[in-house]
Amino acid sequence: MRTLFRNGRIVNVFTDTVQKTNVLIEGGRIIGVGAYTEEDADRVEDIGGKVICPGLIDGHIHIESTMLSPAEFVRACLPHGTTTVIADPHEIANVSGLYGIGYMIEVSRKLPMSVYYTVPSCVPATEFDESGGVLNAQDIAVLFSDPHVIGLGEMMNFPGVIAGVPAVTDKINAAHGAGKLINGHAPMITGKDLDRYIAAGIFDDHECSTMAEATERLNKGQWIMIRQGTAARNLDALLPLFEEPVSRRCLLVTDDKHPADLLYNGHIDSIIRQAVQKGAPVLTAVRMATLQAAQRFGLSDLGAIAPGYQADFLILDELETMKVRDVYRHGEKVVDDGRITDFEDPQVRPDIWKAVRNSVMLRKQDRTMFHIEPGHGPCRVIQVIPDQLITRERRIELDFSRNNGVNTENDIIKLAVIERHVDSGHIGLGYINGLGIRKGAIASSVSHDSHNLIVAGVSDEDMAVAANHIREIGGGLAVVRDGEVLADMPLPIAGLMGLGNASEIAEQNRKVREAAAELGSAPGIEPFMNLAFVSLPVIPDIKMTTQGLVDVNAWKRVPLFVNR
Amino acid sequence: MRTLFRNGRIVNVFTDTVQKTNVLIEGGRIIGVGAYTEEDADRVEDIGGKVICPGLIDGHIHIESTMLSPAEFVRACLPHGTTTVIADPHEIANVSGLYGIGYMIEVSRKLPMSVYYTVPSCVPATEFDESGGVLNAQDIAVLFSDPHVIGLGEMMNFPGVIAGVPAVTDKINAAHGAGKLINGHAPMITGKDLDRYIAAGIFDDHECSTMAEATERLNKGQWIMIRQGTAARNLDALLPLFEEPVSRRCLLVTDDKHPADLLYNGHIDSIIRQAVQKGAPVLTAVRMATLQAAQRFGLSDLGAIAPGYQADFLILDELETMKVRDVYRHGEKVVDDGRITDFEDPQVRPDIWKAVRNSVMLRKQDRTMFHIEPGHGPCRVIQVIPDQLITRERRIELDFSRNNGVNTENDIIKLAVIERHVDSGHIGLGYINGLGIRKGAIASSVSHDSHNLIVAGVSDEDMAVAANHIREIGGGLAVVRDGEVLADMPLPIAGLMGLGNASEIAEQNRKVREAAAELGSAPGIEPFMNLAFVSLPVIPDIKMTTQGLVDVNAWKRVPLFVNR
Repeated sequence: MRTLFRNGRIVNVFTDTVQKTNVLIEGGRIIGVGAYTEEDADRVEDIGGKVICPGLIDGHIHIESTMLSPAEFVRACLPHGTTTVIADPHEIANVSGLYGIGYMIEVSRKLPMSVYYTVPSCVPATEFDESGGVLNAQDIAVLFSDPHVIGLGEMMNFPGVIAGVPAVTDKINAAHGAGKLINGHAPMITGKDLDRYIAAGIFDDHECSTMAEATERLNKGQWIMIRQGTAARNLDALLPLFEEPVSRRCLLVTDDKHPADLLYNGHIDSIIRQAVQKGAPVLTAVRMATLQAAQRFGLSDLGAIAPGYQADFLILDELETMKVRDVYRHGEKVVDDGRITDFEDPQVRPDIWKAVRNSVMLRKQDRTMFHIEPGHGPCRVIQVIPDQLITRERRIELDFSRNNGVNTENDIIKLAVIERHVDSGHIGLGYINGLGIRKGAIASSVSHDSHNLIVAGVSDEDMAVAANHIREIGGGLAVVRDGEVLADMPLPIAGLMGLGNASEIAEQNRKVREAAAELGSAPGIEPFMNLAFVSLPVIPDIKMTTQGLVDVNAWKRVPLFVNR
Repeated sequence: MRTLFRNGRIVNVFTDTVQKTNVLIEGGRIIGVGAYTEEDADRVEDIGGKVICPGLIDGHIHIESTMLSPAEFVRACLPHGTTTVIADPHEIANVSGLYGIGYMIEVSRKLPMSVYYTVPSCVPATEFDESGGVLNAQDIAVLFSDPHVIGLGEMMNFPGVIAGVPAVTDKINAAHGAGKLINGHAPMITGKDLDRYIAAGIFDDHECSTMAEATERLNKGQWIMIRQGTAARNLDALLPLFEEPVSRRCLLVTDDKHPADLLYNGHIDSIIRQAVQKGAPVLTAVRMATLQAAQRFGLSDLGAIAPGYQADFLILDELETMKVRDVYRHGEKVVDDGRITDFEDPQVRPDIWKAVRNSVMLRKQDRTMFHIEPGHGPCRVIQVIPDQLITRERRIELDFSRNNGVNTENDIIKLAVIERHVDSGHIGLGYINGLGIRKGAIASSVSHDSHNLIVAGVSDEDMAVAANHIREIGGGLAVVRDGEVLADMPLPIAGLMGLGNASEIAEQNRKVREAAAELGSAPGIEPFMNLAFVSLPVIPDIKMTTQGLVDVNAWKRVPLFVNR
């Protein structure tokens, strides 16, 4: 069946123009742009002078960070005009390995969005991590045979690339051998180190936070992904990239988006809107978010309104505000006046579903497991810093005569990271300062990048209750006080994603954060957010893992008691 | 071994700038651009402020048209700075089929130039052609497995694409299935027909001769290959393409280059030079000929001076004149101060070599084979037009009482096209007007696209001598007068390419053309050039094939005598 979209104003990303014309669609593709009439079509839609814009492409996102299943992610993003994403399933890979990636790919196949994947390059993230998944070069090579797998995911192990570590080089060579591209991630690296990194064939970067970084990378041939997500926001710093001639080497990406932000502020449409408000030409911003993203990823029939292109496009009242009225994907209307046309939830193969649904493997915890054997002299206490992911090491002499060293007056509470993938019983125990929590305990299975179970609390009893609740709900977030669960947020998909829709997930998230705030929290501290990065030993200075503290700067494990 | 190129001025095609800096090379790749010193390298070359430019890329050429073997083609082009070509072996495929393509690919593998191939899409070119090779969709699919095969060659059968002829669609689908691109060729096609053609996934065109054609194609997403070859020269008409923003969608190509033109005027360097002389910004022209050509063909590590890129680059005294001093390919110096570093001729597998060297399969000809049985009434005579490839049909009552209808006073001589691939004995006989030849005969195995043996002459005797001489030398060009060969040009590789180097081939070509001129030739007529297109039934109005005349406009065979 042929459908004619008449009287549109087409955004032409080849020539940076808006052209009054008509578009003819058949079989999910655009087959003509020009002087077509009703005689050429079986159906006619009169666009009435509205704008037809190519569907938007997010060049780099971790779907897991939205806490939404892929289907719910699509339901949340489509009304914002996103028709293609390139997703890196790094989080679920660290929990469920090949099964986790398999889950993401499998459920995405039939969704009304083109979801391409990169294979996570760093699973586990470091040698200190006890993750649920391990991906070596052979695993990666196998995944490359899937047509929806488009490349090797962000290569965060830049020291490994620069030093030529064989396990890293093997993965890079696997990508080159399969003709797949490699995404970059090398913040702050410059000069000769950057050259070595890029020379491995890593031709993009989404970690630029200054024009100096971006300019060096542009000059050295990298595509620049301008990132504007929920936490990391680089648009302001990178506004000059919207100028010529460099704009042609840039894309727009979100990296990480939280559910409420996605729902209420938008996705790539929101980046375009913000860029335009800050003075960027709208046609440049749209070109970055469409044709150029497609070019970077070799998707030769995406990102434009032209014959032979996939019929993925948006109807907008006006271009500058990017207010999306309708969305078409493969020529089908998937959003009608802002409302999504519902679709069936994808079936998941039982073996995959079991693997990702039963991701929390953990014996029942009791209070004794959180007991710390008193020692002598100062302890290494992790200090969290408002509005930052880095931590500091404080050396404090603790009073073990009461509450096993916990001292809420000095804002020092207990911290545990419990291995939750094979129930090894490994537990890292210590103290954390700065969260502000004065009662109860909080627990979460979202703790980068291994996503073990992280618990912080005032009483060992409440810590055990919180941990056991996460165990009960199969992963998620929980807030406990006096043995009672005040709020929880079940994330039964790998302990990372919920089963509800975006507004339900956003609401649950709001409630657990409110409950955590009731336990007390310091200004600038988001307890779950800060905790989520307290176990990631790639961010300085000191982190807690399942086997205890890691001094990130010295790159080694260190004991809790300084003098031991 | 690491080599440092110090004190260069680097052409940066990402940012349209020239930057004073240093380049570090290792293992055939660029590994660094920046503040490197001798301490970083095993060897240092001081460039002394000269320009380092990425190696040039010809996005579309038929190597056979140069009459040079691939090795000699490379020897001729490298000094002009060409380090990569995308070649369409359409001519040899029509003579030797898969063996012909196999020959081109095999001999190119070890040459000091990156030679990529597209699989010819139209072999034979029409149903009227008796060619030496036939390529169907299955053959094409097999060829796609070769890593040097980059796409499906120019799809000249635009009526077939537009009408959806299954044999054509099968080839297009084979390309899509293998993830290969498709080159276009659809001159004059516009509007809905053009949309249908492009919608098949044909995303470039090298046949634009007006800005109107180019603009429509740009708007519809095609890459525009600006063609400036020996015969077809579109640069003047397409100069506005060097402006922004459209320049980013354009490439430079030659399509067909004759040996003398290549040798004395240059290759892609010459197009850049001409463009600059006509007012185009040199950085734009260089970007078209480097990064953008690589982008169109998905060659992600070609076309720039940047880390991770293949170390293919030129040293120029100055950019604007494109005078190439040195050429590096894979980091090796292959041209030193204009002189090529010689390399061994590639080995050819005996079966392939035999197939392409014995391409002329033809019984010995005698004068009786050229006799035309007299008939009654007017004959259809092919009239050649000065400076054009089209022909006209003239209807002339011939006098068969003398010399079998030939009449040099009216410039009417005999024309024969003899099937030379399987010696079927098929011969098309008739008359040609306008060549100007008054004595003897000329013969050639270069006759598009089937490359049968074409002979034009005044006496049947000389025509037989000329045909037999081509048979003797295994293909080529010959000029005969009074039973003697005045000049010849052996083209023993498929009857299309010689064994000598570019200056030898150019000199032989000059001599046969001089000898043909001695037989008499009309102003604006190049007898061998015109003859080469007299048997190509895709160019109007009337052509001669191995089975007689074809009325191109009516798309059918027609008899010599109008009333028969």
